[in-house]
Amino acid sequence: MSSIINRQWRIAKSPNPEDVISADHFSWTEEAIPEPADGEFLVRTICLGTSPAQRGYMQPVDNKFLHGLAIGEVMRGRGIGQIIASRHADYKQGEIFVGSLGWQDYSIQHPRGAQFMFSTKKLEHPIRPLSAELGVLGQAGVTAYFGLLEVGAMQAGDNVLISAAAGGVGCCVGQIARIRGAGKVIGIAGSDAKCRWLCDELGFDAAINYKAEDLQARISKLFPDGIDVFFDNVGGDILNTALGNLAMRARVIICGFISTNYTPGPHHGPINYTQVLRMRARIEGFVIFDYWERFAEAEQALMAWFKQGQLKSCEDIDAGLEKMPDTLSSLFTGGNMGVKLCRVAPDPDDLPEA
Amino acid sequence: MSSIINRQWRIAKSPNPEDVISADHFSWTEEAIPEPADGEFLVRTICLGTSPAQRGYMQPVDNKFLHGLAIGEVMRGRGIGQIIASRHADYKQGEIFVGSLGWQDYSIQHPRGAQFMFSTKKLEHPIRPLSAELGVLGQAGVTAYFGLLEVGAMQAGDNVLISAAAGGVGCCVGQIARIRGAGKVIGIAGSDAKCRWLCDELGFDAAINYKAEDLQARISKLFPDGIDVFFDNVGGDILNTALGNLAMRARVIICGFISTNYTPGPHHGPINYTQVLRMRARIEGFVIFDYWERFAEAEQALMAWFKQGQLKSCEDIDAGLEKMPDTLSSLFTGGNMGVKLCRVAPDPDDLPEA
Repeated sequence: MSSIINRQWRIAKSPNPEDVISADHFSWTEEAIPEPADGEFLVRTICLGTSPAQRGYMQPVDNKFLHGLAIGEVMRGRGIGQIIASRHADYKQGEIFVGSLGWQDYSIQHPRGAQFMFSTKKLEHPIRPLSAELGVLGQAGVTAYFGLLEVGAMQAGDNVLISAAAGGVGCCVGQIARIRGAGKVIGIAGSDAKCRWLCDELGFDAAINYKAEDLQARISKLFPDGIDVFFDNVGGDILNTALGNLAMRARVIICGFISTNYTPGPHHGPINYTQVLRMRARIEGFVIFDYWERFAEAEQALMAWFKQGQLKSCEDIDAGLEKMPDTLSSLFTGGNMGVKLCRVAPDPDDLPEA
Repeated sequence: MSSIINRQWRIAKSPNPEDVISADHFSWTEEAIPEPADGEFLVRTICLGTSPAQRGYMQPVDNKFLHGLAIGEVMRGRGIGQIIASRHADYKQGEIFVGSLGWQDYSIQHPRGAQFMFSTKKLEHPIRPLSAELGVLGQAGVTAYFGLLEVGAMQAGDNVLISAAAGGVGCCVGQIARIRGAGKVIGIAGSDAKCRWLCDELGFDAAINYKAEDLQARISKLFPDGIDVFFDNVGGDILNTALGNLAMRARVIICGFISTNYTPGPHHGPINYTQVLRMRARIEGFVIFDYWERFAEAEQALMAWFKQGQLKSCEDIDAGLEKMPDTLSSLFTGGNMGVKLCRVAPDPDDLPEA
């Protein structure tokens, strides 16, 4: 072990709606590395992922799947790590493990309960670098896969619009749409650099900088026949504008509301919802955990596309556990380009065969 | 013939959004009864139906299916009548015909064009009184059937909420939901009399007078496990309140927006649309004309339920062609209880066998 202490970020205070997430919301603690009891194993964190949902975890409010974190608890977060000690026969030292590791160097894991089940897996043949397993091959890719193909029922030839297209899920959606034969694939993002990246690196046909351009004018020009599939991560004004530009029998996939969920109101509903009648369209929300029994199906497809070079890695990686508050904060300030991760430790030398 | 002139209501002016529809928007004309040319036939109007869509026809704006009516044109309207003269081999004198007869005593019909196809039929064995054919057995029933069962995919046990439940479509939706084994069937209407009628006559489990009661409080009490299917005819605040009370995987069927479509704005979108994500719900619009190739399927089911006494006739019938402006207006002022019709002439004595 390269470190003999376990560094941790714990909840110090719940964010208010107007807060920008920062280190002030957390406390940094250092303690002894825990020892696994019978049936447990110890994982060393290598990389941590991020999700807008983590802001919700910082409130002491339970949801269907998870309890809200109280002051003093280690911040919840999904990550990839290596098993460095085990007292469980199915989890062996040296194996690579993806699960809810928390914002810390070391965590005790034990295969009990729903949270363990749908968020964990052992990787027999991990991809190098391991960070890719948390990116396009991880929950961002799986969310994009089921959202676009199941909820949105995207067909070859469909013209697809994606909001927060340079975000973790969005950049996977665009690539999968391209792979599955979409007509046009257009992204909405918040900077010219992001727009260039979407077009130059990820194969989007065009991208709209909503902060600098007239969104309505650009969408109506880029979609003269309307939007067949809109994959929405943001809600609010962008959703409303997209609803005003739907094609017949359009599908609107509601993946998140990052524009309104974490900012003070009042927020307005999308007045253009009335277009669902004229266009016989559908607005449908989904939560990726509902699909956990089918994750393997998506992971296999993503891995195959990745190995064939069709699906590009698009991780945006900070360095150092101490960065985690800023890493998470960037999701809400638009600072990320791709799947936002933080590397906590280098990939180990003793990785299993890829 | 009991009349030797053809009385007609023609468009005099297009209604503005704030207008209450009245005789001022129409001009009354009387002219000679037209004679059918080769391939045409003459129909005498017996009963005329109503639809909120008719208000849209009064604007000189075309839609996908129909042209907007110009000043001086006879008002468009669906009705039932008897063929009293024919120069078309397939349409014989004495037969009963449902189609776009217009607001007039007599109309020339000819089987050409899409409008004729999806809005017309000959009735070999018409139900008595003929008005029933324009009510629960007509487009109101067909709209309810496909909206509830196809778009809403209502399953036995689903708890169903219906807005404008005492309206033409709404009172059919509630009855079909009951027939198909819904859990609770709850209606929203605008008077205590309507609410009593829904419960006492049509088998609704409860009804909410949205003008007198606290809609949110009543819905949350009546649906402790949430709404599985919401059939919405009104949009606006009622839709928003329903969205705040959805069950998991709820389906919201958007059939119309009578609360906002014909009233001056500004209107707000339903801020509770964000519930589609938390509840993995779906909001879907539909237009009944899209189903016209399957109308026979619905009509057969409706007729079978009607003959078995499961589906009750619920027509609200005015008397006299001169009443038509008020008859239509009542849809927008909440004056109707059931499928609003106007009887223009008595049922003929020489009806075919039922």
